[in-house]
Amino acid sequence: MEWINNHSVLIVGLGLIGGSYASALSRIGYHVNAIDTNPESIDYALKNGIIAKGASFADPEIIERSDCIIMALYPSKVVGWIRDNQKYFKENVIITDVTGIKTSIVYDIQEILRDDAEFIAAHPMAGREVYGVKNSDEKIFRDANFIVVPTEKNSAESVKWCEDLGRLLGFRRVSVLSPEEHDSMIAFVSQLTHCIAVSLMTCDDNEHLSEYTGDSFRDLTRIANINENMWPELFFMNKDPLVKRLNQFIDEINVIKTMIENNDEEGLKDKMRLSSKRRREFDK
Amino acid sequence: MEWINNHSVLIVGLGLIGGSYASALSRIGYHVNAIDTNPESIDYALKNGIIAKGASFADPEIIERSDCIIMALYPSKVVGWIRDNQKYFKENVIITDVTGIKTSIVYDIQEILRDDAEFIAAHPMAGREVYGVKNSDEKIFRDANFIVVPTEKNSAESVKWCEDLGRLLGFRRVSVLSPEEHDSMIAFVSQLTHCIAVSLMTCDDNEHLSEYTGDSFRDLTRIANINENMWPELFFMNKDPLVKRLNQFIDEINVIKTMIENNDEEGLKDKMRLSSKRRREFDK
Repeated sequence: MEWINNHSVLIVGLGLIGGSYASALSRIGYHVNAIDTNPESIDYALKNGIIAKGASFADPEIIERSDCIIMALYPSKVVGWIRDNQKYFKENVIITDVTGIKTSIVYDIQEILRDDAEFIAAHPMAGREVYGVKNSDEKIFRDANFIVVPTEKNSAESVKWCEDLGRLLGFRRVSVLSPEEHDSMIAFVSQLTHCIAVSLMTCDDNEHLSEYTGDSFRDLTRIANINENMWPELFFMNKDPLVKRLNQFIDEINVIKTMIENNDEEGLKDKMRLSSKRRREFDK
Repeated sequence: MEWINNHSVLIVGLGLIGGSYASALSRIGYHVNAIDTNPESIDYALKNGIIAKGASFADPEIIERSDCIIMALYPSKVVGWIRDNQKYFKENVIITDVTGIKTSIVYDIQEILRDDAEFIAAHPMAGREVYGVKNSDEKIFRDANFIVVPTEKNSAESVKWCEDLGRLLGFRRVSVLSPEEHDSMIAFVSQLTHCIAVSLMTCDDNEHLSEYTGDSFRDLTRIANINENMWPELFFMNKDPLVKRLNQFIDEINVIKTMIENNDEEGLKDKMRLSSKRRREFDK
């Protein structure tokens, strides 16, 4: 279970992230194949040298040759695809994914998976406001975090293999979290922020306000241009941690509102000093 | 009342914005003087050619020579400074300001001001996360909005004079709003966003989360590094519009939360489609 022994890599789902994985791994020299239901995505990737071989269906010939499989489908499709196609998997295959939520899929996959295969979850925390293999670009990994998300069922070797994958892809930082830690963290730093950005854009119908938006409003709403097919799935599959984080944030902004209503200058100054101190840490 | 006839400009308050005004106007060729209670700010500006003359007190000799005065003090200090020092103002002086809120000061100033003088309010919507004349830089105006905020008491000439000032300083866009329109707009695009950014940074004590922040979280919290001496004043002086905007946003994020709790996929998709459409307009 070393990357030097992986001859053939299969990417299932050739969107922005799957495509960027394929580009990076092909450039390094791996033999990368892909499966995607959209024939145009496969054509594009073949023509641009992003993959060596591709199919727009779960082609057994491609699947059974693969030493490792990277699941880059929409979150709700991952478990079903593995269940339906594991009969074609090569013996001792290693599988990872790119899904943005973990608890609701990792245990299910490990439960149904063939005994000889191993699934080690990962979350590449990279993205863009555009989608599809045509926008794929391995540069999106450069300043990003790669999180390996093992359970008790994973071997130390698979964790190491997955950490090596993060480094091969060029991520700035590779770390390890449990599924529960991951989902609580991602609910806060990613899902909550997307809910805030969307709410900011939809809470006021006065379109001429956009004439006056400065950098602050633009910064807070960049991610409000959002893939409406993927994000509701991600929210529902991480409902409890996300609702907890939403409540935590709503409680806090209500505290700030009460301080404003009560002219509580010292209270606000304390909050602002704390937020400034914490935010400056990010730029160190 | 034309900029070509303004020989001497006085800046009162030589911080980031006052200093940036001074730099721009000095470079164009105006004779710019400044008053700031901090002698170090005056020394720095003199040594760096940002101003021609300066004083760390309300020097009558400087005030009485000024054809126009730009009030760049903290919001709570503007009315008092004019009240105390208008006895030194040159006849027919024109005064403007840089304050981020309007309703709570403009009417007061126009009420107490000498009959021969005219006060025309303006808001240069520019800023940085650093303060003081040492960080001043006229480049911060280039992509920013300049809002002229007249009342019924203002002459058409003074509005034109103030619009010309915005263009002289190099603002991307100069527009005109009433004090009430301005305060409602600024409560939304600036004050609400600062409350959100601070709340995001203070609602969770788990400092190791910062290890996992991606671009989204960083974008949403850039302005959480905030001047705690100025912003509570701005919030209190614009309390009603700001509390209204906070409620509008909190109501909307609660709607989104309920949709998540109820697995309301169509509702969320509608919100996301609307937010994406509106946000894409910004980048056109």
